[in-house]
Amino acid sequence: MFSEILEGIVEGTSGGVGAVLMGYDGIAVEYANVLKEIKKTAEILNTGIMQEVSIQTERFQVVIRTLTDEYFVALTLERTGNFGKGRYLLMREAANLKEALA
Amino acid sequence: MFSEILEGIVEGTSGGVGAVLMGYDGIAVEYANVLKEIKKTAEILNTGIMQEVSIQTERFQVVIRTLTDEYFVALTLERTGNFGKGRYLLMREAANLKEALA
Repeated sequence: MFSEILEGIVEGTSGGVGAVLMGYDGIAVEYANVLKEIKKTAEILNTGIMQEVSIQTERFQVVIRTLTDEYFVALTLERTGNFGKGRYLLMREAANLKEALA
Repeated sequence: MFSEILEGIVEGTSGGVGAVLMGYDGIAVEYANVLKEIKKTAEILNTGIMQEVSIQTERFQVVIRTLTDEYFVALTLERTGNFGKGRYLLMREAANLKEALA
Protein backbone atom coordinates (compact mmCIF):
# COMPACT_ATOMS: atom_id res chain seq x y z
CA MET A 1 0.00 0.00 0.00
CA PHE A 2 2.68 2.43 1.11
CA SER A 3 5.03 1.44 -1.67
CA GLU A 4 2.25 1.77 -4.23
CA ILE A 5 1.62 5.37 -3.21
CA LEU A 6 5.33 6.13 -3.44
CA GLU A 7 5.53 4.49 -6.86
CA GLY A 8 2.61 6.58 -8.02
CA ILE A 9 4.38 9.75 -6.91
CA VAL A 10 7.62 8.85 -8.71
CA GLU A 11 5.82 7.78 -11.88
CA GLY A 12 3.62 10.86 -11.83
CA THR A 13 6.60 13.21 -11.62
CA SER A 14 8.57 13.81 -14.79
CA GLY A 15 12.24 13.20 -13.94
CA GLY A 16 11.37 11.36 -10.73
CA VAL A 17 14.20 9.06 -9.64
CA GLY A 18 12.85 7.50 -6.46
CA ALA A 19 10.90 8.06 -3.26
CA VAL A 20 11.61 6.60 0.16
CA LEU A 21 10.06 6.59 3.59
CA MET A 22 12.58 7.48 6.26
CA GLY A 23 12.63 7.67 10.02
CA TYR A 24 14.65 10.16 12.03
CA ASP A 25 16.21 7.20 13.78
CA GLY A 26 16.38 4.99 10.70
CA ILE A 27 19.17 4.08 8.38
CA ALA A 28 19.23 7.16 6.19
CA VAL A 29 21.44 8.93 8.67
CA GLU A 30 22.64 11.69 6.36
CA TYR A 31 19.22 13.16 5.69
CA ALA A 32 18.07 12.52 9.24
CA ASN A 33 20.85 14.74 10.58
CA VAL A 34 19.89 17.51 8.19
CA LEU A 35 16.25 17.33 9.20
CA LYS A 36 16.99 17.15 12.90
CA GLU A 37 18.96 20.38 12.56
CA ILE A 38 16.11 22.01 10.65
CA LYS A 39 13.54 20.86 13.21
CA LYS A 40 15.69 22.25 16.00
CA THR A 41 16.15 25.52 14.11
CA ALA A 42 12.41 25.85 13.47
CA GLU A 43 11.81 25.44 17.20
CA ILE A 44 14.50 27.97 18.14
CA LEU A 45 13.24 30.50 15.61
CA ASN A 46 9.61 29.83 16.58
CA THR A 47 8.52 29.47 12.97
CA GLY A 48 6.02 26.66 13.57
CA ILE A 49 6.29 23.00 12.66
CA MET A 50 8.49 22.09 9.69
CA GLN A 51 6.38 20.78 6.83
CA GLU A 52 8.59 20.58 3.77
CA VAL A 53 12.23 20.96 2.86
CA SER A 54 13.63 21.04 -0.64
CA ILE A 55 17.22 20.98 -1.75
CA GLN A 56 18.69 21.80 -5.17
CA THR A 57 22.17 20.59 -5.97
CA GLU A 58 24.11 20.52 -9.22
CA ARG A 59 22.80 17.06 -10.05
CA PHE A 60 19.56 16.47 -8.19
CA GLN A 61 16.53 17.99 -6.57
CA VAL A 62 15.14 16.52 -3.36
CA VAL A 63 11.76 17.30 -1.80
CA ILE A 64 11.27 16.10 1.77
CA ARG A 65 7.88 16.14 3.47
CA THR A 66 7.24 15.57 7.17
CA LEU A 67 4.61 12.88 7.80
CA THR A 68 4.73 12.40 11.56
CA ASP A 69 7.07 13.21 14.42
CA GLU A 70 9.09 10.16 13.47
CA TYR A 71 8.75 9.73 9.73
CA PHE A 72 9.26 11.69 6.57
CA VAL A 73 9.21 10.92 2.88
CA ALA A 74 11.89 12.03 0.42
CA LEU A 75 11.46 12.30 -3.35
CA THR A 76 14.54 12.63 -5.54
CA LEU A 77 14.29 14.14 -9.04
CA GLU A 78 16.69 14.76 -11.86
CA ARG A 79 17.93 18.36 -12.04
CA THR A 80 15.56 18.93 -14.96
CA GLY A 81 12.63 17.08 -13.37
CA ASN A 82 9.24 18.64 -12.66
CA PHE A 83 9.84 20.00 -9.18
CA GLY A 84 6.41 21.61 -8.80
CA LYS A 85 4.61 18.42 -9.74
CA GLY A 86 6.66 16.40 -7.27
CA ARG A 87 5.91 18.86 -4.46
CA TYR A 88 2.24 18.78 -5.33
CA LEU A 89 2.01 14.98 -5.39
CA LEU A 90 3.81 14.66 -2.05
CA MET A 91 1.44 17.19 -0.52
CA ARG A 92 -1.63 15.50 -2.05
CA GLU A 93 -0.60 12.02 -0.90
CA ALA A 94 0.65 12.97 2.56
CA ALA A 95 -2.65 12.03 4.26
CA ASN A 96 -2.76 8.66 2.46
CA LEU A 97 0.84 7.95 3.41
CA LYS A 98 0.12 8.76 7.05
CA GLU A 99 -2.86 6.42 6.95
CA ALA A 100 -0.76 3.63 5.44
CA LEU A 101 1.80 4.14 8.22
CA ALA A 102 -0.70 3.76 11.05
CA MET B 1 25.06 48.06 -2.94
CA PHE B 2 24.56 44.68 -1.35
CA SER B 3 21.73 45.91 0.85
CA GLU B 4 20.05 47.57 -2.13
CA ILE B 5 19.96 44.28 -4.03
CA LEU B 6 18.50 42.51 -0.99
CA GLU B 7 15.90 45.24 -0.57
CA GLY B 8 14.93 44.87 -4.20
CA ILE B 9 14.42 41.13 -3.74
CA VAL B 10 12.22 41.57 -0.66
CA GLU B 11 10.19 44.37 -2.23
CA GLY B 12 9.80 42.42 -5.47
CA THR B 13 8.44 39.36 -3.69
CA SER B 14 4.84 39.49 -2.53
CA GLY B 15 4.82 38.48 1.14
CA GLY B 16 8.57 39.04 1.48
CA VAL B 17 9.56 39.64 5.13
CA GLY B 18 13.30 40.12 4.92
CA ALA B 19 16.55 38.97 3.31
CA VAL B 20 19.93 38.62 4.96
CA LEU B 21 23.46 37.73 4.00
CA MET B 22 24.90 35.08 6.26
CA GLY B 23 28.23 33.38 6.67
CA TYR B 24 28.70 29.79 7.74
CA ASP B 25 30.84 31.10 10.58
CA GLY B 26 28.73 34.18 11.21
CA ILE B 27 26.16 35.01 13.83
CA ALA B 28 23.14 33.20 12.38
CA VAL B 29 24.24 29.98 13.97
CA GLU B 30 20.92 28.16 13.66
CA TYR B 31 20.77 28.29 9.89
CA ALA B 32 24.49 27.79 9.56
CA ASN B 33 24.24 24.43 11.34
CA VAL B 34 21.43 23.34 9.05
CA LEU B 35 23.38 24.29 5.95
CA LYS B 36 26.59 22.70 7.17
CA GLU B 37 24.71 19.43 7.59
CA ILE B 38 23.21 19.73 4.12
CA LYS B 39 26.59 20.54 2.56
CA LYS B 40 28.08 17.51 4.29
CA THR B 41 25.19 15.33 3.15
CA ALA B 42 25.49 16.53 -0.44
CA GLU B 43 29.16 15.57 -0.35
CA ILE B 44 28.49 12.15 1.17
CA LEU B 45 25.70 11.41 -1.31
CA ASN B 46 27.76 12.79 -4.19
CA THR B 47 24.90 14.91 -5.48
CA GLY B 48 27.02 17.85 -6.56
CA ILE B 49 27.32 21.27 -4.94
CA MET B 50 24.35 22.53 -2.94
CA GLN B 51 22.74 25.50 -4.68
CA GLU B 52 19.44 26.18 -2.97
CA VAL B 53 17.52 25.04 0.07
CA SER B 54 13.94 25.94 0.88
CA ILE B 55 11.98 25.27 4.01
CA GLN B 56 8.25 25.48 4.59
CA THR B 57 6.98 25.69 8.13
CA GLU B 58 3.52 26.45 9.53
CA ARG B 59 4.26 30.17 9.65
CA PHE B 60 7.00 30.96 7.17
CA GLN B 61 8.79 29.99 3.99
CA VAL B 62 12.55 30.41 3.74
CA VAL B 63 14.62 30.21 0.55
CA ILE B 64 18.37 29.95 1.01
CA ARG B 65 20.82 30.33 -1.84
CA THR B 66 24.53 29.53 -1.74
CA LEU B 67 26.68 32.42 -2.96
CA THR B 68 30.21 31.27 -2.20
CA ASP B 69 31.91 28.66 -0.06
CA GLU B 70 31.52 31.00 2.89
CA TYR B 71 28.37 32.99 2.30
CA PHE B 72 24.72 32.42 1.55
CA VAL B 73 21.63 34.59 1.38
CA ALA B 74 18.33 33.77 3.06
CA LEU B 75 14.94 35.20 2.10
CA THR B 76 12.00 34.82 4.50
CA LEU B 77 8.42 35.01 3.22
CA GLU B 78 5.00 34.85 4.81
CA ARG B 79 3.33 31.44 4.46
CA THR B 80 1.13 32.91 1.71
CA GLY B 81 3.97 34.80 -0.01
CA ASN B 82 5.00 34.29 -3.61
CA PHE B 83 7.56 31.51 -3.19
CA GLY B 84 8.29 31.09 -6.91
CA LYS B 85 8.96 34.80 -7.37
CA GLY B 86 11.32 34.83 -4.38
CA ARG B 87 13.26 31.84 -5.71
CA TYR B 88 13.48 33.45 -9.12
CA LEU B 89 14.74 36.81 -7.80
CA LEU B 90 17.39 35.15 -5.64
CA MET B 91 18.58 33.12 -8.61
CA ARG B 92 18.57 36.17 -10.90
CA GLU B 93 20.47 38.37 -8.42
CA ALA B 94 22.97 35.74 -7.26
CA ALA B 95 25.69 36.92 -9.65
CA ASN B 96 25.20 40.57 -8.63
CA LEU B 97 25.32 39.63 -4.96
CA LYS B 98 28.55 37.69 -5.48
CA GLU B 99 30.04 40.69 -7.25
CA ALA B 100 29.00 43.01 -4.41
CA LEU B 101 30.69 40.63 -1.96
CA ALA B 102 34.02 40.61 -3.73
